Amino acid sequence: MSKYQDLKEECYEANLQLPKLGLVLFTFGNVSAVDRVNAVFAIKPSGVPYETLKVEDIVILDYDANVVEGNKRASSDTKTHALLYKTWSEIGGITHTHSTYAVAWAQAGMDIPILGTTHADHCHQDIPCAPVLTDEMIQGDYEYETGNQIFDVFAAQNLKYTEMEMVLLQNHGPFTWGKTAQKSVYNAAVLEEVARMAYLTKQINPNVERIKETLRNKHYERKHGKNAYYGQK
Amino acid sequence: MSKYQDLKEECYEANLQLPKLGLVLFTFGNVSAVDRVNAVFAIKPSGVPYETLKVEDIVILDYDANVVEGNKRASSDTKTHALLYKTWSEIGGITHTHSTYAVAWAQAGMDIPILGTTHADHCHQDIPCAPVLTDEMIQGDYEYETGNQIFDVFAAQNLKYTEMEMVLLQNHGPFTWGKTAQKSVYNAAVLEEVARMAYLTKQINPNVERIKETLRNKHYERKHGKNAYYGQK
Amino acid sequence: MSKYQDLKEECYEANLQLPKLGLVLFTFGNVSAVDRVNAVFAIKPSGVPYETLKVEDIVILDYDANVVEGNKRASSDTKTHALLYKTWSEIGGITHTHSTYAVAWAQAGMDIPILGTTHADHCHQDIPCAPVLTDEMIQGDYEYETGNQIFDVFAAQNLKYTEMEMVLLQNHGPFTWGKTAQKSVYNAAVLEEVARMAYLTKQINPNVERIKETLRNKHYERKHGKNAYYGQK
Amino acid sequence: MSKYQDLKEECYEANLQLPKLGLVLFTFGNVSAVDRVNAVFAIKPSGVPYETLKVEDIVILDYDANVVEGNKRASSDTKTHALLYKTWSEIGGITHTHSTYAVAWAQAGMDIPILGTTHADHCHQDIPCAPVLTDEMIQGDYEYETGNQIFDVFAAQNLKYTEMEMVLLQNHGPFTWGKTAQKSVYNAAVLEEVARMAYLTKQINPNVERIKETLRNKHYERKHGKNAYYGQK
Repeated sequence: MSKYQDLKEECYEANLQLPKLGLVLFTFGNVSAVDRVNAVFAIKPSGVPYETLKVEDIVILDYDANVVEGNKRASSDTKTHALLYKTWSEIGGITHTHSTYAVAWAQAGMDIPILGTTHADHCHQDIPCAPVLTDEMIQGDYEYETGNQIFDVFAAQNLKYTEMEMVLLQNHGPFTWGKTAQKSVYNAAVLEEVARMAYLTKQINPNVERIKETLRNKHYERKHGKNAYYGQK
Repeated sequence: MSKYQDLKEECYEANLQLPKLGLVLFTFGNVSAVDRVNAVFAIKPSGVPYETLKVEDIVILDYDANVVEGNKRASSDTKTHALLYKTWSEIGGITHTHSTYAVAWAQAGMDIPILGTTHADHCHQDIPCAPVLTDEMIQGDYEYETGNQIFDVFAAQNLKYTEMEMVLLQNHGPFTWGKTAQKSVYNAAVLEEVARMAYLTKQINPNVERIKETLRNKHYERKHGKNAYYGQK
Repeated sequence: MSKYQDLKEECYEANLQLPKLGLVLFTFGNVSAVDRVNAVFAIKPSGVPYETLKVEDIVILDYDANVVEGNKRASSDTKTHALLYKTWSEIGGITHTHSTYAVAWAQAGMDIPILGTTHADHCHQDIPCAPVLTDEMIQGDYEYETGNQIFDVFAAQNLKYTEMEMVLLQNHGPFTWGKTAQKSVYNAAVLEEVARMAYLTKQINPNVERIKETLRNKHYERKHGKNAYYGQK
Repeated sequence: MSKYQDLKEECYEANLQLPKLGLVLFTFGNVSAVDRVNAVFAIKPSGVPYETLKVEDIVILDYDANVVEGNKRASSDTKTHALLYKTWSEIGGITHTHSTYAVAWAQAGMDIPILGTTHADHCHQDIPCAPVLTDEMIQGDYEYETGNQIFDVFAAQNLKYTEMEMVLLQNHGPFTWGKTAQKSVYNAAVLEEVARMAYLTKQINPNVERIKETLRNKHYERKHGKNAYYGQK
């Protein structure tokens, strides 16, 4: 049995959550999970339907996207995952989807404004939309440069990846991450719902303003602050 | 066995209705049920997924939000429930969700206008949106003050809680209540549907006017008036 | 056994289609079926949930809405059904729902314009929205007058009930009918889908024009004309 | 047993995918599959519900729409399928639906602009909307002329049917095709999702511009180019 059996199963289970949560059509998404001790990550194979996906199909790679174990071709987005794991050491899992409302904001090329407590319960800033890559980046090592574009928008907006666990890529769609693969899937579902709420809100009231700072902080802190009282101890 | 076993089961069953009715994503909601004889209420524990929730996880508290029975931490919104039970003596159950369309109106900061009979079958005024709390309220006893903000908007709009069983909190989302926990869940589903219908109506016809008074009264009275003829005797 | 057993079962089965087709929330709808030989119709009892509805709950009434058989109180909309059966002799069944998009057009107070072949496959005119009833009608025999308001809009727009089997009541919602109860439910689902398509079309292109007459006629005739070739012989 | 048994089963299975993917209401759609060796195609019978459809109901016809085998009347859209098979020799299957968002764009009479990578993963141009047929075409051999109208818009926009596997007919709805019947159904689902994303994007940002050429090419080529690296080898 593979020494990465547990990692593969974690990755497999997290991938199966995507169709259950209505976040993917056909094969439009992928989840990876990292093993920080062995410095490898597991990711969905490219283009394999979720209905026929098996644990042994999961591919194991190192942080430079070299295959360590597996017979299938890894997700075409693998290099983005690899670079995020390499650079952001506290990430445990990454999810990429083409979920409908998140893609709509990405195609519109706009940050998702922080309009309410559903958003503030999970992150305390607008959800950033990284600008479309330059032609050089696209024609170069595209998936690797996608990772760099994410770092750039986080630097430009002064965001911490441990606090903001989601991003949009303009004209493309969302990436989310978290302490575990499962948490990254959770964040993908939260992002889709927050994107849908923000869409509807702007349709009702195009001039709506952001949630005020005190309320934003209250909700973020009661879930994530040092005196958090949401959830079980 | 706990003397509150029946109360816990009522609360448990009502909570399980939320995912079935499509009103919650993950743990974004909670239902409570009150026992007026013993002056206690039962509420969902904080952050526990509906799939793994058990009857014995339900927490029992008094009207000042002191825990009477239970090992779990109660919902973070518990103090709002407590104050509503303490002040409004005819309420039997309370539901809080982040349902999509109700949240969209709350984020837009607008009352839901009464546009048709679906709305008038359940309440005979616009569904009020309580303004965002002051910084002092937010930085003070936030969940307790949320209850006070609800009372304030009911006073300002001259509403009776026995007739209007739903409210929006600006930038947050809806609370609903009723004679039983089950009825409060029913009202949460009605509110979401009425919010969706009002959204679509305003998109089709931005200048639409409210339902006229005679039709509003007719529908409200045939369900709730002294000569009501809706439903079984 | 009741002599109306078959009629009750037809009515019961047609009512159960409403939740399956996503056309109703809770008890917001009702279907009736007529027996032209005995000059009676069967209708859902008022306010009974679809999950607990039984065949024997179905109420039998004559065309003046006098109860012929049944222990339950009939739907609050019964008099509208009765008048439609009494006046329009070729109707076999009637459905009333509060389906979301149809209600949105009704609340907007607008006819649903005929924009494409999905609409023209089923009716060859705009789906009419009957104006809100006068105060006298509402304060008089409301449900009976609702029937009269339907007749009035059909007269005003020169429509035949055998060709246009659906109508909206302003600020209220849709009624549909057909040769059988089952067909009236089918029409309720078609109306909801056509209402949704028209909504989206107007959002994309607010200045869109109606389908042209030749295409409208072609699609209506290939399904309903004397040389129809849609469906099996 | 029919020599076309396999073909009928392929057609049958592909048709059953339509309701599973949420692409049809009642009987509003049809899929066909071609047998290039015998120069015949199999298609759904007209107006038969998917729930009661049987393999033996599938009709076999030649490229001039003459029935070769089968007791049922073929889909009313059969001549469009026949002409596409006759003219475009590399098509293996064709799907026609009235899916909601694709119909909305068709009713709006607009091409679906290429706004993101979900679109570019599947086709590298706007999805064309063929103008409504002339009165002569409609009053002549309508379904046959529908095929000609598709060819005309492909000629006018200089599109190749092997690269652009979808089209809208103004005021009507979509046709999609592909190497197999299954692939044509896949394309119908992709089109509906792309149509929905484009709708939402334009609502958020009415002035949005198309995806830039380099990104469009990158995504199209990584799936369809000679050095494609999406999916398994």
